[in-house]
Amino acid sequence: MIDELSGLPGIGAKTAQRLAFHILHMPREDVKRLSQTIMDARENVRFCRECFTLTDSEVCPICSNAKRNHRQIMVVEDSRDLAAYEKTQKYDGVYHVLHGAISPMQGIGPSDIRLKELMKRLEGDVDEVIIATNSSLEGETTAMYIAKLLKPTGIRTTRIASGVPVGGDLEYTDEVTLLRALEGRTEI
Amino acid sequence: MIDELSGLPGIGAKTAQRLAFHILHMPREDVKRLSQTIMDARENVRFCRECFTLTDSEVCPICSNAKRNHRQIMVVEDSRDLAAYEKTQKYDGVYHVLHGAISPMQGIGPSDIRLKELMKRLEGDVDEVIIATNSSLEGETTAMYIAKLLKPTGIRTTRIASGVPVGGDLEYTDEVTLLRALEGRTEI
Repeated sequence: MIDELSGLPGIGAKTAQRLAFHILHMPREDVKRLSQTIMDARENVRFCRECFTLTDSEVCPICSNAKRNHRQIMVVEDSRDLAAYEKTQKYDGVYHVLHGAISPMQGIGPSDIRLKELMKRLEGDVDEVIIATNSSLEGETTAMYIAKLLKPTGIRTTRIASGVPVGGDLEYTDEVTLLRALEGRTEI
Repeated sequence: MIDELSGLPGIGAKTAQRLAFHILHMPREDVKRLSQTIMDARENVRFCRECFTLTDSEVCPICSNAKRNHRQIMVVEDSRDLAAYEKTQKYDGVYHVLHGAISPMQGIGPSDIRLKELMKRLEGDVDEVIIATNSSLEGETTAMYIAKLLKPTGIRTTRIASGVPVGGDLEYTDEVTLLRALEGRTEI
């Protein structure tokens, strides 16, 4: 058990041992429920047929929610980014999860992420595609690639803003971000 | 000496004691130079006549540099923010240092910062005012106030972008910043 547990990310030999001993002292019923939950989760979690986020139903709760704006699609790199935007409780469109970003360095090309699936979705009625890939080199590369891909469709394509974080002090903001904030300045 | 030193920010009693003993063991000449430098700096540093940054000449090196674009003025809260943008080495306009931000909570009003001086400068030939106050409540309040103030002048007024910092991962970005990034999205 210690070997198995220490194979999980962020769990070293010591933590694994502590967890193992804790489990050995748990009531048999609790252990059964824990192990069953882990197995069930792994068995039942799949990709949403629409947006490809991880879910336990065929269509995720967001895509099956009629109150969401299905004509506005936010493209994110993974389900954790979707979760981050969901936490704001202010975005009422739907998502598309790429499961990665284009990275020539790591040999990840456009066909290795869910781009074909995105293009297929755009055959329906879509007003806007919001590209919310990370502000990393890979995220920017992916954003540029998608923008180029969508150009011929005429669908409004936007990119979330990059700049000084809210509450941030210029003094403690890195130079590249300061430059980006300057380049991305808008009329007020 | 320990008392005096521990009155400086970030220097507690222990550090003050360590510094004091270090100074007592320094060669007399070095101590003289140190104390003289501190005094000279304090005596000679003043506000630039143009932009009000801290400088040791009547007009700071930036304002007296003919190669800088004097028709583009970036408004910052303090000299440290100016220094942050200077480090990017990409901004070639000039600055205006407000020395603070409007904060009704702290009783700091528009007349407590160098706004009148800014308005006076704008009587000259100015193409653009870039408001680069911090992305805090005070910074935003100040930005809005300046924008309103400048409206009748017709001078192009812009605000640096607020959003996900460069290299930033959505997953680790706070919700308010995510929202701002969404609101501030631009067509690509």
